[in-house]
Amino acid sequence: MTDSLDTTPDRRPGGRTARIRAQVLDAVRAELAEHGHEGLTMEGVATRAGVHRATVYRRWRDVGGLLVDVIDAAGEIAWEPPDTGSLRGDLTALNQEIQESLVVQPSFAVALMAASFHSEQAARAQTQLWTDRYAQCEIIVERAVERGELPAQPTDARSLLIAATAPLYHQLVLLRADPDPHLPKRAAEAAVLAAGAGAFSVRRTRPL
Amino acid sequence: MTDSLDTTPDRRPGGRTARIRAQVLDAVRAELAEHGHEGLTMEGVATRAGVHRATVYRRWRDVGGLLVDVIDAAGEIAWEPPDTGSLRGDLTALNQEIQESLVVQPSFAVALMAASFHSEQAARAQTQLWTDRYAQCEIIVERAVERGELPAQPTDARSLLIAATAPLYHQLVLLRADPDPHLPKRAAEAAVLAAGAGAFSVRRTRPL
Repeated sequence: MTDSLDTTPDRRPGGRTARIRAQVLDAVRAELAEHGHEGLTMEGVATRAGVHRATVYRRWRDVGGLLVDVIDAAGEIAWEPPDTGSLRGDLTALNQEIQESLVVQPSFAVALMAASFHSEQAARAQTQLWTDRYAQCEIIVERAVERGELPAQPTDARSLLIAATAPLYHQLVLLRADPDPHLPKRAAEAAVLAAGAGAFSVRRTRPL
Repeated sequence: MTDSLDTTPDRRPGGRTARIRAQVLDAVRAELAEHGHEGLTMEGVATRAGVHRATVYRRWRDVGGLLVDVIDAAGEIAWEPPDTGSLRGDLTALNQEIQESLVVQPSFAVALMAASFHSEQAARAQTQLWTDRYAQCEIIVERAVERGELPAQPTDARSLLIAATAPLYHQLVLLRADPDPHLPKRAAEAAVLAAGAGAFSVRRTRPL
């Protein structure tokens, strides 16, 4: 979401435009978490943000525009993957962050996933955000390779990261299991053991 | 969903009651797949099924009731987990079934997952169906233990099954990745390698 239609001069970071965006996106997050995306309306967001309805319509157009911008904003946050000194430690810490974001009530992350089933725009923005996050996390695997924690053969970092994190999403979002405090570590460990056994080595032209 | 309110005598399998249920659930599946759960209405289902609206209201009450019954019906299908002679083969075949159900256009499975984000009733029914399916699949792990394919220590079958299948749901449903024909086998293999390295052994009181 760019402000390409906004030609007012006050577009510097921290200016009025940025302040209004922050107010509106805070309101979107709060409304999403409280009422889910089905309860998200332009009017509700404008009222909660204390911003004129016309401004919200002009800049975000519709609920899909609000969803996309709130996802884009999540991608703008300065986030760094964990760096604990070991692959197991990094993946466990990453999984703990993921588990917290999914378990917190109300969960903005889960509300966004629900919304992405019903808005193509939101789905695309979320896919992009996740692609970026997994790309950022590849450094975890690169550091493990440098430390000699993984087999010499090149490792498919993304597959390893997905193997480590997928059980959390599956259990908590799709299977709606009760949160298991051991799951972040166990899922990380299983991925590390699989990686150690060559599960994510590339250049295997055929599976074992 | 029981027919507890239906006191007509013709309730034997294959009778009128069963026939109407089959017609209505076929219509629910078709409407869900075509329009998603947002497009699911009692009227639309009644029309498509060629069944009187009053009958649909009386037996299923509301859209939530239709969703629950269509999920329950999925659980009533005689389904057996694959039995290929090896753990890797069984998990790969299971993953292939899962991938097909998620990739087919339109996907009834994905429509149900979307619906479960918006209907507590549907979410509970789906959780129950998945719980039953994973329980059914534990035989895959038991057979592998009998064949000596897994470490002697007891294995947490459900965790192994989730590790094998979760990457498919994560990639295809949440990350909306393009289907990868190698993913079913690769995800199965990674879980088998992790299991071989003891990732799902129970009785470990603390992680490795």
